[in-house]
Amino acid sequence: MRVEIINTGTELMLGGTVNTHLAFIARELFPLGLRVQRQVTVPDGEAIRDAVRDTFGKADIVLVTGGLGPTTDDLTRDIVAELLGLKLEHDEEIWLAIQERFRRRALKMSERVKLQALRPREATVLWNPHGTAPGLHFPAISEMGTPHIFLLPGPPRELMPMVREKLVPILAKLLPPGAVHEWRNFRVLGIGESLVEEKVGEELIAMGLEVGYCARPGEVDVRLIGTVPVLDRAEALVRERLGKWIFTSDERELPNVVVEKLTALGKTIATAESCTGGFIANQLTNVPGASKVFLAGYVTYANSAKTAALGVDAALIAANGAVSEPVARQMAEGALENTGANFALATTGIAGPDGGTAEKPVGTVFVALAVRGAVTLVQHHRFPTDRETFKSLVSQTALDLLLRQLDGRDTAPAETFSPGDGGCGGQA
Amino acid sequence: MRVEIINTGTELMLGGTVNTHLAFIARELFPLGLRVQRQVTVPDGEAIRDAVRDTFGKADIVLVTGGLGPTTDDLTRDIVAELLGLKLEHDEEIWLAIQERFRRRALKMSERVKLQALRPREATVLWNPHGTAPGLHFPAISEMGTPHIFLLPGPPRELMPMVREKLVPILAKLLPPGAVHEWRNFRVLGIGESLVEEKVGEELIAMGLEVGYCARPGEVDVRLIGTVPVLDRAEALVRERLGKWIFTSDERELPNVVVEKLTALGKTIATAESCTGGFIANQLTNVPGASKVFLAGYVTYANSAKTAALGVDAALIAANGAVSEPVARQMAEGALENTGANFALATTGIAGPDGGTAEKPVGTVFVALAVRGAVTLVQHHRFPTDRETFKSLVSQTALDLLLRQLDGRDTAPAETFSPGDGGCGGQA
Repeated sequence: MRVEIINTGTELMLGGTVNTHLAFIARELFPLGLRVQRQVTVPDGEAIRDAVRDTFGKADIVLVTGGLGPTTDDLTRDIVAELLGLKLEHDEEIWLAIQERFRRRALKMSERVKLQALRPREATVLWNPHGTAPGLHFPAISEMGTPHIFLLPGPPRELMPMVREKLVPILAKLLPPGAVHEWRNFRVLGIGESLVEEKVGEELIAMGLEVGYCARPGEVDVRLIGTVPVLDRAEALVRERLGKWIFTSDERELPNVVVEKLTALGKTIATAESCTGGFIANQLTNVPGASKVFLAGYVTYANSAKTAALGVDAALIAANGAVSEPVARQMAEGALENTGANFALATTGIAGPDGGTAEKPVGTVFVALAVRGAVTLVQHHRFPTDRETFKSLVSQTALDLLLRQLDGRDTAPAETFSPGDGGCGGQA
Repeated sequence: MRVEIINTGTELMLGGTVNTHLAFIARELFPLGLRVQRQVTVPDGEAIRDAVRDTFGKADIVLVTGGLGPTTDDLTRDIVAELLGLKLEHDEEIWLAIQERFRRRALKMSERVKLQALRPREATVLWNPHGTAPGLHFPAISEMGTPHIFLLPGPPRELMPMVREKLVPILAKLLPPGAVHEWRNFRVLGIGESLVEEKVGEELIAMGLEVGYCARPGEVDVRLIGTVPVLDRAEALVRERLGKWIFTSDERELPNVVVEKLTALGKTIATAESCTGGFIANQLTNVPGASKVFLAGYVTYANSAKTAALGVDAALIAANGAVSEPVARQMAEGALENTGANFALATTGIAGPDGGTAEKPVGTVFVALAVRGAVTLVQHHRFPTDRETFKSLVSQTALDLLLRQLDGRDTAPAETFSPGDGGCGGQA
């Protein structure tokens, strides 16, 4: 099945908005065995007509995003119906749903809103609980050589649930039996992409699986697609070889895994950050419900703040420098002491671009984990990269250290890490 | 001049990488008066041939990114030369530059690298100081109806400088005289898009300017394009009507403006965050050189931390709740006291999704600015949105309050704010 995506929106052509639709949709279709063969972006309006017509005879499934709103430049619905020779009619059920939505939110409704309740009777409605305009599915018309055409809303918060909850189940039914494979995802931290591939790659491919790697800064995703019995054998292999590096076997991000683990264990955490400047606290507090486990964070950028807020010995800083093993240790222990938390993470390093020396170049960092009633762990790393990636890598290293402690996995520092420039690729 | 962009790369079709090229290139071409009319993404390999051929007769300028590397799937150079009937030849100057680059970085060179030194003599080289493969410019061939074709590298750190330093100057020369206009940008905070448009929109358009608005959560960009004398008159109007909301008239982000202003004034800042959870500290410390002005941040999520770290009166919390005007005030004043900073910002609110009450619904927030030797300012806002947008809007409000204080602008709370769902648009 050949899939094409058409993204519509003048704002995309002006550069104010980055188009994330292709990346999101491609990931969601991947487990179905579907690959996007072409994606086109056009402005609102008549350009949509050519883009849709261009897919006739070339694609089996066409996903069009955007242009379903109530304003005069929202023409996708009209253009597609016209191309297919179908008549738009008022749909009372859609209209009631739209009115109900406006009523619930006490919003004023303009006359044009009613246009969003139009659909040809041949099209199936994809209900949109997150916005006004529903999606529409125009089935393929074989005598015309037209593909299945899906009209989807443009705003990501409407598009994403519609793709997951409505589009993917419909596509799964359109595919020939046996085409839908299961998939599994393993997210690893503390080991680089090439080493991951070396440890499991050949054997997984020999099992007949489709194998995809996605290398992000500091982490690698290993995605396996195939039938359940083969996946079961593959999972056993992956867990045996990569177990100590796997932080989750679902889609969750590291901060979510950490907060949910702490919540399940009824444990609390505090942070004492220098070089990460609040990045770790911010990551943790992005997780809904973080307030149950996150007690407090200190961002002690100035040396005086390290002493005043965390009780780091000023003489120790003078003797070793603020970026040093004993200072990281005292920062973590100070945060543990101050807050009464079960765990405290500390970071001190040189984010750059300035501040490096021959002995401690830019990218040098010490990460400490203080554990109530146990010995404090301190790791030394070097991440020579840009300032924001540095903060992200250090945060990841710190949260990974904590998670290894919580999971009872090996807490020794990683020997390799993913620079994250490998992008995503796959082999079948 | 009709511009099309072709992005090549299998990784873009698999969803692991978000395509930022269109947004970046569109912004860079905007001041030239050039608008992208169509953008296509295709996988590496033969699909590039169709995509390039499709532009013949339809576009005047075609920008192709990616596929210039040394691996077997890097075919852009070969395909385009073949389509135009041009012969690739070894270019000794390119080859010397490549060898020099490998020597300087002490990298091992594979035989295939030499392929990157191929070019037809009809094409102009765009030198690439940030990578191996140079860009190429194939001038339009009028008898064939082919456009100007530019081959550009895929990695953003190579693409971005090449677009700015090489592509834009060449395009400026290709444009008819008078087509290149100047442009000015004004970034405003604390006022919604529709109000901005109401205050200046009609008059700016009457002046004959091209006017673009870009509404992001909390902020609006007003971009004006035209000739210098008209822009001068327009700028006077914009400053008169919108002056109290303009935080910068260049491309800088708010945290950069704040850090640079504090640096210039020799002043220091501390933060005391509850609901923003370290977001503000993280934003400030993302700015290189932040350590000169940012002394320390407290992320006091738990009530006990507010008392222990910032000296907030526990009875005050019990009487008013942690999300209240007096608690915000004491948090800011506590941070000022602890750190000796000139300014301290504090936030306390309900980020959601849980924790709201009838009296203090999700989105309620108090923002305080303590000023050494002056009275503390406290503002009450409500931002009912998702957790991460909430943190971002509160951070913006806090930094804006500080910047208004530093600039001597009105510090009264905004009456409207941009929900940021207007996207970017323009009118000429």
